[in-house]
Amino acid sequence: MQVIELPQIREALKGIDVLEEVAAGFVAYSRGEAVVPPVGELTFEDPPGDVHIKYGYLRRGQGYVIKIASGFYDNPRKGLPSSNGMMLVFDQQTGEPSAVLLDQGHLTDIRTAAGGALAARCLAPNPVQHRIGILGTGIQARLQLEYLRQVTDCISVLAWGRGDEQLDAYRRDMTAQGFDVATTRDATEVAGTCDLIVTTTPSTEPLLDADAIRPGTHITAMGSDTAEKQELDAAILARADLVIADSIPQCRERGEISHALDAELMNENELVELGSILAGDAPGRTDRDQITVADLTGVAVQDIQIATAVVRALGDS
Amino acid sequence: MQVIELPQIREALKGIDVLEEVAAGFVAYSRGEAVVPPVGELTFEDPPGDVHIKYGYLRRGQGYVIKIASGFYDNPRKGLPSSNGMMLVFDQQTGEPSAVLLDQGHLTDIRTAAGGALAARCLAPNPVQHRIGILGTGIQARLQLEYLRQVTDCISVLAWGRGDEQLDAYRRDMTAQGFDVATTRDATEVAGTCDLIVTTTPSTEPLLDADAIRPGTHITAMGSDTAEKQELDAAILARADLVIADSIPQCRERGEISHALDAELMNENELVELGSILAGDAPGRTDRDQITVADLTGVAVQDIQIATAVVRALGDS
Repeated sequence: MQVIELPQIREALKGIDVLEEVAAGFVAYSRGEAVVPPVGELTFEDPPGDVHIKYGYLRRGQGYVIKIASGFYDNPRKGLPSSNGMMLVFDQQTGEPSAVLLDQGHLTDIRTAAGGALAARCLAPNPVQHRIGILGTGIQARLQLEYLRQVTDCISVLAWGRGDEQLDAYRRDMTAQGFDVATTRDATEVAGTCDLIVTTTPSTEPLLDADAIRPGTHITAMGSDTAEKQELDAAILARADLVIADSIPQCRERGEISHALDAELMNENELVELGSILAGDAPGRTDRDQITVADLTGVAVQDIQIATAVVRALGDS
Repeated sequence: MQVIELPQIREALKGIDVLEEVAAGFVAYSRGEAVVPPVGELTFEDPPGDVHIKYGYLRRGQGYVIKIASGFYDNPRKGLPSSNGMMLVFDQQTGEPSAVLLDQGHLTDIRTAAGGALAARCLAPNPVQHRIGILGTGIQARLQLEYLRQVTDCISVLAWGRGDEQLDAYRRDMTAQGFDVATTRDATEVAGTCDLIVTTTPSTEPLLDADAIRPGTHITAMGSDTAEKQELDAAILARADLVIADSIPQCRERGEISHALDAELMNENELVELGSILAGDAPGRTDRDQITVADLTGVAVQDIQIATAVVRALGDS
């Protein structure tokens, strides 16, 4: 059994087409070729934190994967990143552990960013005509933008956050990566001037109102991954022409869609899975003026794909 | 973060009072001092296997524990033990991993055996007047007997199994440990001659009939840990004077009690938890002629206790 540390994982990632690995996972999932039980969850009150256990396997695969990802939101005050975790790969024939990937949450961050880029590839206006709007200033706010490079040429960005210090750091870092970044503390400005919006916060109250969203906007909501968290006014989903879920069963229980379903603002049979669009089994955006929403709660099949790809890459090297 | 291999774990265990650690865990659990979400489960068809993910934390503890335990039942044919797995310990304040215990399922085996001994301490006739009956010839059939030494002086054993070869090996191994072991392929003989019976098989059909059980018998059923597995005729639970669960919420969903509840042969409010008896909050056996049953499905609090005890012992050494 291999214990693989983060530097080795980063090295292996250089040879992996993360977007294509994750896309193949979503396709397999939506075609019923994956076994993905409900997410395991532990919550902590003091200090506040949550831990998600996502696990499963592809029926035609060789391994099964168990992923642990934690978010402890007071960590930054202690000089620690809020997210952490590891991925475990086991043999599907015998249960023997084959690898412990001590990724400190990095693979979760990466596969989440890849999900955002895939959603944009299917649903964002093409080309993005105005700006990319990012809600949040943390790791995902950075990675989402980096991964969007693979699917759009737009480099004009408006970032929203709650603190000037974090916004300044975000602008500095992303400017250094070649983006043209403005910042705001008014989320309505994002809605009014951006046509590809990505929300990356752990908010438990809506940050964007339905009235502010303009025709031709795509929103990827990836911050909300529990039943409590919420970034979008549920009326946005009601107003949208197309709402996609990374996993319909999972979005029934957690994320933006769960709030819209609970409020009876939409019907489950209107939902389409990201994997169905990626597979060509369902259409993505069909009209420039559509409002589209992708609700990404994070599916174990993303973890399965990235973890097995890293183990395979290290085996090949 | 420490990666701890099996030899280190075995060494650490020498300084740990496993029975008392596990007992304290059951007490904390039954007093509501533990957070233990439902068990995560993955099942495999070809080859047949199941994986259980048990996890949680004590509210006053320092860590949280995630335990992975697999059973792949064709493994022995490949020269491999059927069980495998690992335990992971994380910091409850930050989510940082503190230890990966590569125990290959050993800690699960040990804490399961400790559960059996604790059930016998509360419920077995004292002294055991006839014989200890063991159904099964695998690792648990061995460990249960070893751990029973801590709670009874009885060394007379009747072991039941389906194959002569396995029975012979079991007799040889346990005789070498000082037990006086007879074997049988007739489970009714166990019911008829043993007053402390432990069932340790992965059976999906009842092995013991209600009519065969005599007054003054205690049965610990620990093989059945899924909704499908079953070792006891549900009528045994209906006939018993006292039925205890390691976890009432968990036994509602899996194990012997779930079958008896589904068949409406008993009522959930008749159940008592092992931790309540260990705490002195409920009586155990009160009469020599009672029939008692303990249904042990395996609770994360056992894993929490054993994993944190090992990490503590290694930190102290």
